[in-house]
Amino acid sequence: MIIGFIGFGKVSQNLIKLIKSEDILFITSAQNRSPKTIENIKQSDVEVLDSFKEVAIKSDILISANSPASALNVSKKYGKYAKGIYLDLNNISPDTTMKINEHVENLIDGAVIGKIDSTNPILYVAGKKAEELSFLNEFIQIKVISEKIGDVSLLKLLRSTYTKTLSALLIESSNLAEGYGLEEEFFDILTLTEGETFREKSKSRIANTLNSKKRKSEELDEIINYFDSDDLIMVKAALERLSQ
Amino acid sequence: MIIGFIGFGKVSQNLIKLIKSEDILFITSAQNRSPKTIENIKQSDVEVLDSFKEVAIKSDILISANSPASALNVSKKYGKYAKGIYLDLNNISPDTTMKINEHVENLIDGAVIGKIDSTNPILYVAGKKAEELSFLNEFIQIKVISEKIGDVSLLKLLRSTYTKTLSALLIESSNLAEGYGLEEEFFDILTLTEGETFREKSKSRIANTLNSKKRKSEELDEIINYFDSDDLIMVKAALERLSQ
Repeated sequence: MIIGFIGFGKVSQNLIKLIKSEDILFITSAQNRSPKTIENIKQSDVEVLDSFKEVAIKSDILISANSPASALNVSKKYGKYAKGIYLDLNNISPDTTMKINEHVENLIDGAVIGKIDSTNPILYVAGKKAEELSFLNEFIQIKVISEKIGDVSLLKLLRSTYTKTLSALLIESSNLAEGYGLEEEFFDILTLTEGETFREKSKSRIANTLNSKKRKSEELDEIINYFDSDDLIMVKAALERLSQ
Repeated sequence: MIIGFIGFGKVSQNLIKLIKSEDILFITSAQNRSPKTIENIKQSDVEVLDSFKEVAIKSDILISANSPASALNVSKKYGKYAKGIYLDLNNISPDTTMKINEHVENLIDGAVIGKIDSTNPILYVAGKKAEELSFLNEFIQIKVISEKIGDVSLLKLLRSTYTKTLSALLIESSNLAEGYGLEEEFFDILTLTEGETFREKSKSRIANTLNSKKRKSEELDEIINYFDSDDLIMVKAALERLSQ
């Protein structure tokens, strides 16, 4: 069994660390890679081929783990050589996933949920061949969502709908409490119903959102455009909240 | 030390159960009470006087625990006789609390947070004399918020701002997920970041809100009117969400 990587960032490096088996050979290429990536490759237990074309041809499972912007291009360039499974782990929209599907035979739509370098990340997968990845359960928890390509990226978007709107709500209600000098008491009283981690988690969400307001607004905008739905009252309000 | 009750529902009954001390005498009256309340009084360790006027005069701490609608009237009728502390435990708005303050000398603005019949309810209190209730810590956790009358009812309102808007968000995002056949997966993936109790808690919030949509809408309306603020973008969206 050969697993090939196109893209060699944190996800690829950590998957190699997690999947320890004598039966599995990892391959990638250093073709046009940055010095930093080449250093990462050197420090990993991976065989280096001359080109990504070769990597694609030889892999039973080809993993694309790049930047969201390059995911589609990678599929256009190498999808046709992948005769086994093509597992896309890029953080992309359902639309992009569907486009990639046009260039790839056996696409699996995937996402690492939870921090990849934590002790218990979960690999969410969807697609006709998704079940075939179950053998990886020995190394990393595999969660098969459905046979439908796009369901994993859709699920990530649905999650964002909740978490990003929640952050806007936290900003609004804690601001209001702060105006009355009751911000800490506000977190205290909610901790009783929302759980011990509420204060810490909420403050980190608020700070995160305020520190990257522009990006979060763009992400909310993408959600609204994707679902194109009059029903997104709360999400639209969150976008308005962030623009204040 | 004499503690008197005007209103003898769940709060009063359970406070008597919690506060077990030889130094404390509980009093109330059966004046104009319903047969059910009189039965509750009989089953409690409380002395029954002929009138609430007498109860007010004799109490070191007079507790008003009635329906929200009657809280102000009770203060008008009996506030003037209360020479000790007058502890209002009704579920009322900060506005009503301020009105009650006009009829009562030593008002303490209070609320039982958490279920009164659970093992660990907390008594939130605010007011100049709030610290004087600290001796009750032996029986029930006392949390002094500030010396400012209205701060406890305000804090409850701030909490509602968060929890009621959250319910509207849960309705919107889980509906969206349901439309794609991914509702359970939506709860699953959020459980990873929101904690083990997320699914159960969220579903109960959604059901609760949908089952009493009209009341929840009225409560959101009260919040918006009270704060009278252009800043309540999320809360206003929640009201709109519930009207769908």
